[in-house]
Amino acid sequence: MDNKQMVKEITNIEVDFAKWYTDIVKKAKLCEYSSVKGCMIIEPYGYAIWENISNNLDKEFKNIGVENCAMPMFIPESLLKKEKDHVEGFSPECAWVTHGGNEELEERLCVRPTSETLFCDYYKNTIKSYRDLPKLLNQWVSVVRWEKTTRPFLRSREFYWQEGHTAHRDGKESEEFTIKMLNVYADFLKNFLAIPVIKGQKTDSEKFAGAEATYTVEAMMHDGKALQSATSHNFGSGFAEAFKIQYLDENGELKYVSQTSWGLSTRIIGAIIMVHGDNEGLKLPPYIAPIQVIVVPIKMKDEKNLEKAKELCSLLKEEGIRATIDLTDKSPGYKFADSEMRGIPLRIEIGPKDIENNQVVLVRRDTHEKIVTPLFDIQKSVKDILEEIHINMYETAKKHLNENIREADTLDEMVKIINEKSGFVRAMHCGCKECEKKLKEETTITTRCIPFEKKLNKKTCIVCGKPAKYEVIFGRSY
Amino acid sequence: MDNKQMVKEITNIEVDFAKWYTDIVKKAKLCEYSSVKGCMIIEPYGYAIWENISNNLDKEFKNIGVENCAMPMFIPESLLKKEKDHVEGFSPECAWVTHGGNEELEERLCVRPTSETLFCDYYKNTIKSYRDLPKLLNQWVSVVRWEKTTRPFLRSREFYWQEGHTAHRDGKESEEFTIKMLNVYADFLKNFLAIPVIKGQKTDSEKFAGAEATYTVEAMMHDGKALQSATSHNFGSGFAEAFKIQYLDENGELKYVSQTSWGLSTRIIGAIIMVHGDNEGLKLPPYIAPIQVIVVPIKMKDEKNLEKAKELCSLLKEEGIRATIDLTDKSPGYKFADSEMRGIPLRIEIGPKDIENNQVVLVRRDTHEKIVTPLFDIQKSVKDILEEIHINMYETAKKHLNENIREADTLDEMVKIINEKSGFVRAMHCGCKECEKKLKEETTITTRCIPFEKKLNKKTCIVCGKPAKYEVIFGRSY
Repeated sequence: MDNKQMVKEITNIEVDFAKWYTDIVKKAKLCEYSSVKGCMIIEPYGYAIWENISNNLDKEFKNIGVENCAMPMFIPESLLKKEKDHVEGFSPECAWVTHGGNEELEERLCVRPTSETLFCDYYKNTIKSYRDLPKLLNQWVSVVRWEKTTRPFLRSREFYWQEGHTAHRDGKESEEFTIKMLNVYADFLKNFLAIPVIKGQKTDSEKFAGAEATYTVEAMMHDGKALQSATSHNFGSGFAEAFKIQYLDENGELKYVSQTSWGLSTRIIGAIIMVHGDNEGLKLPPYIAPIQVIVVPIKMKDEKNLEKAKELCSLLKEEGIRATIDLTDKSPGYKFADSEMRGIPLRIEIGPKDIENNQVVLVRRDTHEKIVTPLFDIQKSVKDILEEIHINMYETAKKHLNENIREADTLDEMVKIINEKSGFVRAMHCGCKECEKKLKEETTITTRCIPFEKKLNKKTCIVCGKPAKYEVIFGRSY
Repeated sequence: MDNKQMVKEITNIEVDFAKWYTDIVKKAKLCEYSSVKGCMIIEPYGYAIWENISNNLDKEFKNIGVENCAMPMFIPESLLKKEKDHVEGFSPECAWVTHGGNEELEERLCVRPTSETLFCDYYKNTIKSYRDLPKLLNQWVSVVRWEKTTRPFLRSREFYWQEGHTAHRDGKESEEFTIKMLNVYADFLKNFLAIPVIKGQKTDSEKFAGAEATYTVEAMMHDGKALQSATSHNFGSGFAEAFKIQYLDENGELKYVSQTSWGLSTRIIGAIIMVHGDNEGLKLPPYIAPIQVIVVPIKMKDEKNLEKAKELCSLLKEEGIRATIDLTDKSPGYKFADSEMRGIPLRIEIGPKDIENNQVVLVRRDTHEKIVTPLFDIQKSVKDILEEIHINMYETAKKHLNENIREADTLDEMVKIINEKSGFVRAMHCGCKECEKKLKEETTITTRCIPFEKKLNKKTCIVCGKPAKYEVIFGRSY
């Protein structure tokens, strides 16, 4: 049968998760490898997901007064070098332009890995007075990091993202804004992607190059590994001092601004795949699915059947539902499997008998449940079920997250838990970099974050036994 | 007075058009120079114009079945070299990445100047059968061309655009699609940007590197010079043969696809400035203006005045009108001049006397006309006037275009007309490249296009006197 045949071509999710992931990316036509080593082609279906993510997230940004702009894609080497920690963090991953046309450049240019330095240069020239603050800017662009090993969406030499860069009067305001943006991300992940997260702060070794504090939303994938889903950084006045970004306050005093940056990238598509997907394929959250509903006419050669199916599809579209109809010459079985592979949240099967009974069959991608539904007010039924699917996908992911965070008292215990059961471990840490480094090298386990929500009441570091500084979520990560 | 003072800072449009242009770009905060030579920073107000252009044009594309995707920003040198004419046309302007991280690359990578070669590489791998055709793809990205002299929006080393790339069964279908896209651009320019154009075909010397035929929409700027506003190319099977893009037709025969590409860039913002602007500043067409209506409360300290102004602004926003209120501590006179400088199509002045009389004063940016309007159903009045403004801006530009296309019989006559009166000249041409080259070198006049709409009935080339091949629109251009 077509159906089984198609599914057979995907590696079992429990057998080889990495291969399952690559199969989904390829079979659902999200991404294609290119002749450019380490760079991916985002195919129309994958890009449509990114468009739905970016359009919705952009609305959230605009609601809080953020404006979009566009900085150059190149950074002169001297500009990149202005903030010491920053250049150390990024220069090993830079792609360098050395020639323009037929001439060698006087100064080589880095293809932006991130744009703090460009925004700083702009702010230095445009911020004069407290009246110019806050500056809340963002750009939707691609950036380049010369990674050695790459994987579609998760790690590629070029990826798409948004990077917000803001300037404020002081450190208090920038800290508040940093947390505000972290919450924007967490809410967006919950409300649009059905992904629950742990909010927290990065330890010093894991924070962004040049930041005073980095905050993160960490999601748990199906295999129990973490994916850092978005980050928000408070720079304090570090960059401002390096770039001399000063303003006159109300009293005529010259002060340094305090800055933030925050980003979410196409990596998040990797998270969507790995949080929700299953052995049938991709499973897309309804609010960002390019196709929310696919109508499958059962008897393609029955003109009345075809007509009714088309009418139904138009009806749903008029209500703003992203509906489509499968008119290919494949069998219904193939079409069912195909719609599941592509992760379409809801399938509507309509055949001659359904038309007779003024009904259709709705099939949920999340539960595989078949629901015989009257055609009367079908638009409302579909909208309600899409919402239910979203909620159920979120609750399922939340349950998986909660059930896979465990506590540990000793290092051995922690390693055993993560190796055997996967997931995260909640434990205490002394906060020293050496201790984290040792753990990472010996076990490949890293600190994911210092969670905002604390649960432990213990006093010693799980790694070295010295007095603990804070509670940490440990895990392996993408 | 504030008002005059502000305007005085702009160069007079009739005295020095080039300087006027730069003043507008700077004073309306569209663009800022960056530390990256030849690259611009598109500031929030300028970028918001681009967002309105791209969102609306993207809808037109999607309506005809075009899907978005994302190709890598790099092109390996060997890939760029596959189509001979294409590489010759673009390699003198390429920026080259030679190092990734700390290592020299085995093969240098060009930062895309355009992406025909990348799409061809993708099509070669994904098109197998007639069922896969047509492929109608597009991407919204920035591209890089290493220009020697640059000007904001008009010519910069990096610019934003959309590039559509399609594959079809045969040359007839690709030719039809090329013309279809040219019409999409012409309609978009008319309906959203209030810019009239001349549609036509480029002569052989002016066509795109690798194209069989290039079509263009040419607009006339305030100074009579042309700006090529969008182009659409039919490649026939040239690229397909170079890249071996073949498909099996219904009869099992292996055939080359036939391709097109078409693009519109941030240059068009330059056209908006130069077609519509005047001595008061920018003049934005209502349907793409980031702010369509600005409300100016006359007595800022009168609480009732302020309250009513805010209510009015909210009312307009609820109707989907992009309205804002000027709450800065500047004088009304300054605010009026500022709203004109920024090209906001409609200003609403509201003072205590207006409130008493249940009215407001609408001031049109295009005609400076002041219209006392009842507050009753003000949303409808505003919408109607915005439409009138759009129509009037289009008609004004159309009149300027029509009045400045002249006919000439001899070369001397043509040069005299263009030098003294500016604008375009309609004349006959023999079609040979040498003749065009000579004209360009001696007079800086070029062939803009072979217009679809022909008007002449003459037989000899205006340059060399030999038998003419076609009618041409001549002019100087940006």
